Amino acid sequence: MNTWRYFLCLIGLTIFLIPQAGFTQTEPPVSENTEACLACHAVLHPGIVSEWKKSRHGRILPSEALKKDKLERRISNEKVPDLLLKTVVGCAECHTMNSEKHKDTFEHNGFNVHIIVTPSDCSTCHPVEVQQYGKNLMSHAYGNLVNNPVYRSLADEVNGMKSFEAMKITFKPPDVETNLDSCLYCHGSEVKVKGKKSRKTSMGEMEFPVLSGWPNQGVGRLNPDASKGACTACHTRHQFSIEMARKPYTCSECHKGPDVPAYSVYEVSKHGNIYNALGKEWSFNSVPWAIGKDLTAPTCATCHVSLTVNQESGEVIAERTHQMNDRLAWRLMGLIYAHAHPKSPDTTIMKNKSGLPLPTELTGEPVPQLLIDSKEQSRRNATLQKICFSCHSDQWVKAQFTRFENTLKTTNESTLTATKILLSAWEKGAAKGLAQKDSIFNEAIEKKWVEQWLFYANSTRFASAMMGADYGVFANGRWYLSKNIQEMIDWLEFKLQKLPETKK
Amino acid sequence: MNTWRYFLCLIGLTIFLIPQAGFTQTEPPVSENTEACLACHAVLHPGIVSEWKKSRHGRILPSEALKKDKLERRISNEKVPDLLLKTVVGCAECHTMNSEKHKDTFEHNGFNVHIIVTPSDCSTCHPVEVQQYGKNLMSHAYGNLVNNPVYRSLADEVNGMKSFEAMKITFKPPDVETNLDSCLYCHGSEVKVKGKKSRKTSMGEMEFPVLSGWPNQGVGRLNPDASKGACTACHTRHQFSIEMARKPYTCSECHKGPDVPAYSVYEVSKHGNIYNALGKEWSFNSVPWAIGKDLTAPTCATCHVSLTVNQESGEVIAERTHQMNDRLAWRLMGLIYAHAHPKSPDTTIMKNKSGLPLPTELTGEPVPQLLIDSKEQSRRNATLQKICFSCHSDQWVKAQFTRFENTLKTTNESTLTATKILLSAWEKGAAKGLAQKDSIFNEAIEKKWVEQWLFYANSTRFASAMMGADYGVFANGRWYLSKNIQEMIDWLEFKLQKLPETKK
Amino acid sequence: MNTWRYFLCLIGLTIFLIPQAGFTQTEPPVSENTEACLACHAVLHPGIVSEWKKSRHGRILPSEALKKDKLERRISNEKVPDLLLKTVVGCAECHTMNSEKHKDTFEHNGFNVHIIVTPSDCSTCHPVEVQQYGKNLMSHAYGNLVNNPVYRSLADEVNGMKSFEAMKITFKPPDVETNLDSCLYCHGSEVKVKGKKSRKTSMGEMEFPVLSGWPNQGVGRLNPDASKGACTACHTRHQFSIEMARKPYTCSECHKGPDVPAYSVYEVSKHGNIYNALGKEWSFNSVPWAIGKDLTAPTCATCHVSLTVNQESGEVIAERTHQMNDRLAWRLMGLIYAHAHPKSPDTTIMKNKSGLPLPTELTGEPVPQLLIDSKEQSRRNATLQKICFSCHSDQWVKAQFTRFENTLKTTNESTLTATKILLSAWEKGAAKGLAQKDSIFNEAIEKKWVEQWLFYANSTRFASAMMGADYGVFANGRWYLSKNIQEMIDWLEFKLQKLPETKK
Repeated sequence: MNTWRYFLCLIGLTIFLIPQAGFTQTEPPVSENTEACLACHAVLHPGIVSEWKKSRHGRILPSEALKKDKLERRISNEKVPDLLLKTVVGCAECHTMNSEKHKDTFEHNGFNVHIIVTPSDCSTCHPVEVQQYGKNLMSHAYGNLVNNPVYRSLADEVNGMKSFEAMKITFKPPDVETNLDSCLYCHGSEVKVKGKKSRKTSMGEMEFPVLSGWPNQGVGRLNPDASKGACTACHTRHQFSIEMARKPYTCSECHKGPDVPAYSVYEVSKHGNIYNALGKEWSFNSVPWAIGKDLTAPTCATCHVSLTVNQESGEVIAERTHQMNDRLAWRLMGLIYAHAHPKSPDTTIMKNKSGLPLPTELTGEPVPQLLIDSKEQSRRNATLQKICFSCHSDQWVKAQFTRFENTLKTTNESTLTATKILLSAWEKGAAKGLAQKDSIFNEAIEKKWVEQWLFYANSTRFASAMMGADYGVFANGRWYLSKNIQEMIDWLEFKLQKLPETKK
Repeated sequence: MNTWRYFLCLIGLTIFLIPQAGFTQTEPPVSENTEACLACHAVLHPGIVSEWKKSRHGRILPSEALKKDKLERRISNEKVPDLLLKTVVGCAECHTMNSEKHKDTFEHNGFNVHIIVTPSDCSTCHPVEVQQYGKNLMSHAYGNLVNNPVYRSLADEVNGMKSFEAMKITFKPPDVETNLDSCLYCHGSEVKVKGKKSRKTSMGEMEFPVLSGWPNQGVGRLNPDASKGACTACHTRHQFSIEMARKPYTCSECHKGPDVPAYSVYEVSKHGNIYNALGKEWSFNSVPWAIGKDLTAPTCATCHVSLTVNQESGEVIAERTHQMNDRLAWRLMGLIYAHAHPKSPDTTIMKNKSGLPLPTELTGEPVPQLLIDSKEQSRRNATLQKICFSCHSDQWVKAQFTRFENTLKTTNESTLTATKILLSAWEKGAAKGLAQKDSIFNEAIEKKWVEQWLFYANSTRFASAMMGADYGVFANGRWYLSKNIQEMIDWLEFKLQKLPETKK
Repeated sequence: MNTWRYFLCLIGLTIFLIPQAGFTQTEPPVSENTEACLACHAVLHPGIVSEWKKSRHGRILPSEALKKDKLERRISNEKVPDLLLKTVVGCAECHTMNSEKHKDTFEHNGFNVHIIVTPSDCSTCHPVEVQQYGKNLMSHAYGNLVNNPVYRSLADEVNGMKSFEAMKITFKPPDVETNLDSCLYCHGSEVKVKGKKSRKTSMGEMEFPVLSGWPNQGVGRLNPDASKGACTACHTRHQFSIEMARKPYTCSECHKGPDVPAYSVYEVSKHGNIYNALGKEWSFNSVPWAIGKDLTAPTCATCHVSLTVNQESGEVIAERTHQMNDRLAWRLMGLIYAHAHPKSPDTTIMKNKSGLPLPTELTGEPVPQLLIDSKEQSRRNATLQKICFSCHSDQWVKAQFTRFENTLKTTNESTLTATKILLSAWEKGAAKGLAQKDSIFNEAIEKKWVEQWLFYANSTRFASAMMGADYGVFANGRWYLSKNIQEMIDWLEFKLQKLPETKK
């Protein structure tokens, strides 16, 4: 063998390996203000400081980041304030950004620091993402739940306390902490500043703002600077790793349970299988994300968010979007019937013919003026399908979408059947509903009705959309759609038999 | 230290690392036909082309593969057609193989291409596996479901539509797309050519066959060349990675739900724990699979499929089999009672004394002539146990199998109890059953009966077989076996009370 | 570029890589006795021998291990018997340790070997861990279940057999193998020597002890040397990998189901998400475990067991403990109501005012003398919170604990409501309970009551404690707390209507 050839290889190998071994890297410049933070917090909070040091924020200068080609850029602003250009993005850069707009700002060792970094702060460098996210249903997740009387009533029924005395149930609405521990964990809380309080710290007596609704990272959090959302819901502090946001575990934090089982379905899908078995060899940090080179099967982010390109042609397959519904024609989940996506991310403006704040009638007919039309649906489907075409034929993809839309139809029918049983129960006096101004979620048959759409129809649809049939049959799908109808009828029969005034 | 020693080490290290860095690899020869495919499809479908390039099919010449020692060979044919020897196995090699037998063949830029590569095509190089798989229940999964009136009736009850009017349920059998989206996703579809259709493509107007029952990768798919099964169910296109087939996620696509919770049990078993924690250091690509060197705990494939050898002695521990039941004495799942494995993979030939197409009576007695005898059971147990003995003592293994067989007995008893309650409900007129020629799956008590065996008894058995007790007690096992019996009786009591003609 | 600089780098790189490539490692000395074992068992059991070779036991001399600095030491004894110092810890070292105390000792090719290595054996080198573990509830898991009449009765009801004849259920207590296959898999079995038996082996006729209650690795196993527990429950044989014990899959073997869903909650928590997405880059083998450097989010072990230090200051954050409740103020699970942790790990000594062996009354009031006081609770919370402070502010952590304690309160209230419905059912004769000396777990309403606390209240608490809200709402939490109460009342109403003697 040729010794010189090996020697040359060694040199090449070394050049290749050195940067990864950290030989020649010099520490990037950190601002004086951030140095001041780190002086104490590196010891106080070694976990998050270490994460930050590994992050791009902690290693790349914005001035360098701005030089990247358009497709490779992670900063969506054309310009970044001069002050931020020449040092990495550290503690002080974010936690003193726009401090005058933050009610949670406090004086801290000579700095005006705020506790909660918000989408408004992030938009200094990432305005396009923040603006897109504002059109996403998620950014309105707090208000869409709390300010819609129907959902609010469902949440209260889930979280409230029931007492039992003398064969009677008394209901007490949930306390604030229970709501924070439950629905609002994902939907987001309203964070308010309740005053200030002094406390002894290892650095002496210090004063801090007192927050309510805190801690919380929910997607629709109402922040003390009046902005909505929490980028950290997916871009977890303080590594803000794109790898993490692109892996399905991030989505699973809020999308695994029987009501929104996206991750549970993904796990048993072919796509999930490929990811689980071979994803360890993919690149999760590349921007743009080259299909073929960086990944060979989608994660949640691939289909719903990421900027993807064709590894061969370099052509853009899908533009990055943080308005996830930009690629979604249908709203599958959280509502009684699947329907075309709402036009507005603020769904509290909904009103159907019966005056309920819902996008469909109780019997399923959509409220057309509130929802996107079929042309917009086609556009969204086309955007999404372009990603599918990276691996699948036209016929494959179209047949899959036809099958999926058939499943929307049949699961809506199945929900309608359950609704008719419920309406019958109300009408015959077996349960108290809208006409009696009673909660429509508190009686056993009403809870079964909720499970019909919130659990089983939703799950069947997700299983269809993402091709994870195992979840959509016996795990949480069609088996229960069928069984639940039977049990609703039985309940109604047992109950009616009890009511002397009822004639069958 | 000795500089020369280090220098030598460097040389060695380089030799070791070079192939992995890709320095000296030359591209393997690709056939002209496949080059023609790639000319367009590399850009059209970068995801699957990239997978193929990583695959052994895309990197190894069959002529080289045939030179391997017997145990290392992945091609089971003694010879391979000359035409295939000197180029890698690319698009054209598989998609134009036996095109005359394929109803889905179409003229495509001068080639006779078929869409679906089938086990018959794969058998060109892998005949032993295909032949074994033909004796596997899985290859008959379509017919065993669709052509058995009992199962078909269960599937219809799960997938069909129910309407409610005037306190009455009307039933409508499921549509084709629903079946494809549900049971047939795993069981496999019947793929038929429905004609041809032209469509505009980026390469101009082209004509393609129109398929029904497509897309589908189910294990028992009926293919347009009259073959059965889909190798791609486990050997996912187009990487056909043995690593992936050996990892448990592949099996979990169809074996996770409460009816067949093999993966759910594995996850909480000691074996699953070892795999999850330490499997990242194992070799999933070695053939044969050396216990000790390549892996130290089993995945699904280790026990049920793979060729394993003893790392110390080189001795074969288990021969590769694609007839999974070759190592299985009992059939645990999918049936009312656990029983000795059926002799034939085509279970539509079953008939019990009451004329039902089942391997046992409704009360549990097996139909002996249809099932393997205890001698064959012992042989299969011995095959499986040889794998266990790689880590466990004789006493350990035997005691585990005794415990497992006791669990088969008790879960069968528990199912019998549920069956007797159901028979009583039929007899007393609380539900309509066989005698009334009504579906035995549509009433609430019948659904509870199904859950007794299909969910809870199955799960308890799997948890026992694979030592994942956490799943077999409160997750989906004995707790429900006990609770369900109580609820069946309560239902019967409530119902009987309602029926004036019933005397208790 | 500077060739010499590269050459120096190459040297450095090589020095860095060589130990990992295994170039210069010499095999560590193995005792003659262990060599004798390996002579046969390397071939007989390649899986476990290979695991052992990878283990620290198989690679590090105790004499070397003792030289480590205090924080780095994995041996907690000051001294180790001379005989063990100079060879690695192999088969013979453990399996002939204290053989005179082992009833499972047998003569085997000239050695007195025992089958089961127990905590007493491990305490030769690891006495502190064994002693701590003895104060852990887990080490008493067998007796706490089997010798507490209330729990025993619950276990019997789950595992026992029910027959149905003439509209009546007959109950038969569970057989031994069923208990081993069910609750005792995790709780641990009583392993007894039942005699000896000869059998033909590949090495000729040999005699072995016959064990009952075997195999078993449950945490509270009663061993043939009269010790309690199985270190191998978490430190899986024969690699005894700290990496494995620190990964959450180990805990999931027994803590995933709906009764103790710690792992299920972790999976959807922010901590679990960080681990799943980025944990592949952490160090799981470092002792001490440096927060920031080795890991940036906790696994189960981080909070409950491990010795952690601050990567910046080197300061100890939490001392290692194998008495897990040393960091736990509350007992969340397995009992009717959450309550302060019991003082004694032996909970069979419990007795409440009504004479039941429980730490609270049926109506929730704790039995104060049996439980730790609020001062001890504060101490334990402070120990745990110190770990939280590595990443979180004082306000964050305190607010999280306040929220969690509120959830304990509300889930206890919700359980009380269910209990009152049950008491009412007993009182009105709809079910038979304590007063009738009937099982309190066998009727449908009693099972619903059990699910209220054992499944739904527990799950809601875990979801709160570990911030995995998705699990605590619709997956297994508050939705069911609310629904179950409604169904209990309905059941009671249906039942009472049936009882002519009952007046409502």
